[in-house]
Amino acid sequence: MNASEFRKRGKEMVDYVADYIEGVEKRQVYPDVEPGYLRPLIPATAPQDPETFEDIMTDVEKIIMPGVTHWHSPNFFAYFPTASSYPAMLADMLCGAIGCIGFSWAASPACTELETVMMDWLGKMLELPEAFLAGSNGEGGGVIQGSASEATLVALLAARTKVTRQLQAASPELTQAAIMEKLVAYSSDQAHSSVERAGLIGGVKLKAIPSDGKFAMRASALQEALERDKAAGLIPFFVVATLGTTSCCSFDNVLEVGPICNRENMWLHIDAAYAGSAFICPEFRHLLNGVEFADSFNFNPHKWLLVNFDCSAMWVKNRNNLTGAFKLDPVYLKHSHQDSGLITDYRHWQLPLGRRFRSLKMWFVFRIYGVKGLQAYIRKHVQLSREFESLVRQDPRFEICAEVTLGLVCFRLKGSNKLNEALLEKINNAKKIHLVPCHLRDKFVLRFAICSRSVESAHIQHAWKHIRELATQLLQSGKE
Amino acid sequence: MNASEFRKRGKEMVDYVADYIEGVEKRQVYPDVEPGYLRPLIPATAPQDPETFEDIMTDVEKIIMPGVTHWHSPNFFAYFPTASSYPAMLADMLCGAIGCIGFSWAASPACTELETVMMDWLGKMLELPEAFLAGSNGEGGGVIQGSASEATLVALLAARTKVTRQLQAASPELTQAAIMEKLVAYSSDQAHSSVERAGLIGGVKLKAIPSDGKFAMRASALQEALERDKAAGLIPFFVVATLGTTSCCSFDNVLEVGPICNRENMWLHIDAAYAGSAFICPEFRHLLNGVEFADSFNFNPHKWLLVNFDCSAMWVKNRNNLTGAFKLDPVYLKHSHQDSGLITDYRHWQLPLGRRFRSLKMWFVFRIYGVKGLQAYIRKHVQLSREFESLVRQDPRFEICAEVTLGLVCFRLKGSNKLNEALLEKINNAKKIHLVPCHLRDKFVLRFAICSRSVESAHIQHAWKHIRELATQLLQSGKE
Repeated sequence: MNASEFRKRGKEMVDYVADYIEGVEKRQVYPDVEPGYLRPLIPATAPQDPETFEDIMTDVEKIIMPGVTHWHSPNFFAYFPTASSYPAMLADMLCGAIGCIGFSWAASPACTELETVMMDWLGKMLELPEAFLAGSNGEGGGVIQGSASEATLVALLAARTKVTRQLQAASPELTQAAIMEKLVAYSSDQAHSSVERAGLIGGVKLKAIPSDGKFAMRASALQEALERDKAAGLIPFFVVATLGTTSCCSFDNVLEVGPICNRENMWLHIDAAYAGSAFICPEFRHLLNGVEFADSFNFNPHKWLLVNFDCSAMWVKNRNNLTGAFKLDPVYLKHSHQDSGLITDYRHWQLPLGRRFRSLKMWFVFRIYGVKGLQAYIRKHVQLSREFESLVRQDPRFEICAEVTLGLVCFRLKGSNKLNEALLEKINNAKKIHLVPCHLRDKFVLRFAICSRSVESAHIQHAWKHIRELATQLLQSGKE
Repeated sequence: MNASEFRKRGKEMVDYVADYIEGVEKRQVYPDVEPGYLRPLIPATAPQDPETFEDIMTDVEKIIMPGVTHWHSPNFFAYFPTASSYPAMLADMLCGAIGCIGFSWAASPACTELETVMMDWLGKMLELPEAFLAGSNGEGGGVIQGSASEATLVALLAARTKVTRQLQAASPELTQAAIMEKLVAYSSDQAHSSVERAGLIGGVKLKAIPSDGKFAMRASALQEALERDKAAGLIPFFVVATLGTTSCCSFDNVLEVGPICNRENMWLHIDAAYAGSAFICPEFRHLLNGVEFADSFNFNPHKWLLVNFDCSAMWVKNRNNLTGAFKLDPVYLKHSHQDSGLITDYRHWQLPLGRRFRSLKMWFVFRIYGVKGLQAYIRKHVQLSREFESLVRQDPRFEICAEVTLGLVCFRLKGSNKLNEALLEKINNAKKIHLVPCHLRDKFVLRFAICSRSVESAHIQHAWKHIRELATQLLQSGKE
């Protein structure tokens, strides 16, 4: 395909993309296909000779679309949102064209420098403490990771390296393995599974701290675990606090937990993957209070800040702690500004070597929406979740299962788990809307997350009417 | 920005992208900017109110482009290529629009299933052993990782889990830390720095095996290390063999190393990040011989197979070994087909949870080029590197430093390292072309990698003429 055909096909694709987004509401939100549906529909091997673009686009509608779960449908209320906006898509096109791999400053200075400045912009939007910003010569700074899972893992590895070096400096005879055997990390029992996974990968114990009645990690429970573990000869070194848990969007008490971490020389990482976007609104910023105690902080603009996946924003107070865990400098990656102290080589901040020019998406989105536009977007979603909450509360057959703070409502029919499992099955089999469940303690709970950029009050009303009807059917069939 | 403005701006962006790619040769391949150039050019904070798209695009030319290293310029011969093609860019646009996060089958069945089938297509193009293919009910299969670094790390972690479980099954009293203290992994002294990094992250020893005169890992050196380490009570468990090293594109001898790994119960991972694309040509397929001994194999279509970054293809013979290392199943990610055995949840195959619909890029590229088109592309690059090699060989002042097998030529002026460092500095300061160096043993060597999709014989001839002129200047100035 040459440039001239790309000009033609690219413009057709722009229209296809706009048509898809504008028309996504008319598509069934969850597909009808069964596992293994796709393989029989396409050849067993790649074609030897070129095929036409028309053939491919025909197959997109015939083969791909019937198997797509439409995350951007206004009838999609599952998981958490994944961001989608036109400016981000335009920036991604530009990113693809430039196609640089920004592992070092020299590999594309603009790619590194725009990222540093965009992370400062975003940090300021959140009113992060100055220590997290790169500024012109700060010790902290931000980096775009691919996902919150990677940010958690990177923080855990940095903390592991830091504590290992400290212990070995004091007792040079200690081996890394002897230290790792005793290291212990903590998170709330509500933390995302990726935290447990980071512990597995890092080869250290990860203990779940029982959360309180509001599903929050509190000082007392953490302190208790600490004392027990220290008495058993373990070495507490790392705590993940979650702001906006996946199950029910609860908030660990960082104002309580943070000082303990600082006192006990434990690295505090704050994971606000979903909720973080809301902190750009002054009325939600208090939820981030205590971030000043953290060593690292992460949230995903690719969830709720209109920057398409992937764009996971991570800040650290001390960049040397992060880069110290990974730094290896082979000759083929050295460059003349290497040791100037002025530059950032982001490959030392992350797990992969390669990286795309993702900060373009932030730049485009922040400028096209403006901070006010982004705040309005967050507020609209919060308002819609409150609307849904109040609808649920008006029906005495249902109960709200956790405080509704942002865009997630956890609810269920009063009654058994089995009943609620049946309700969810009915909802997802009807395929008019799509939800996923969670467990809160021993309760099976339905999660209603405000997701789509195009979701409006009418969709919420329809969704609730539909859920109520299915509940009525279910409760009646149970009586028969 | 609404759909109608996106239609307009998207089409403008398509033209901008085509203009950029068509005109990239006219841009200076390496930028003039100094560290810190960008920050003073843009505001210190995000705008409160929306700005216009025109303003942004003006700034792209004014602020971004002057700081870009143009990886797709035909004058770019640094690092290794990073892929760029029009069909891949079109697929990326579609991927952005669908915007699904394919962590499980249910999260978007098409995203998972196309990936599995595309990895089979690509595996067949390479004539991978059947055991690596998913087929309809195989135990192996492929997955798209973000980078070769991640593939190596994932393989190492899977191997670590496998050997730990085996040892604990035999001796239940062994702790993970006690085992990890004794685990040892191997790679050639020519392996990429990401291999050493995987060892650091995984918390295991990683030993470099001295390569032979052709920079290849051979049986004897590996065997020697194994015997020594086993005698010292260590537990060898993992070997990374590289096909096409980063420094000089040398090839470890997998036919020798493979049987040792199998005999010693060590996981063999083959990293062919750059060279792997060439194996789709029958005349280069022999370089992959011995892959049948491997447990996992990885290469980057995003380097040399016209699929834009990121798309790192990884296959395993036994998917349970991979997923076993990471599998955690929280309720909010469960779905009704979970335990059917028919489906793949790719989140268990990788480090992050989230993942984009990257197989669309493979599908578009394979169909628009056809296998023959892709083979022709590889062959052209190999031919151009041979052309450069023969130019170098005609000038007695220069020497070729490693066998030229694919698209990389390692060369230097006969003489001191200092002389060659000065030559590289002259070349990169002139900014007509861009190269990076490497060390081969104690020699400082220049790497000339065929990179751009649009590079032609004329660019090679010009580049060589330019290098010769700078060398002449340098040698004369030394005489004065």
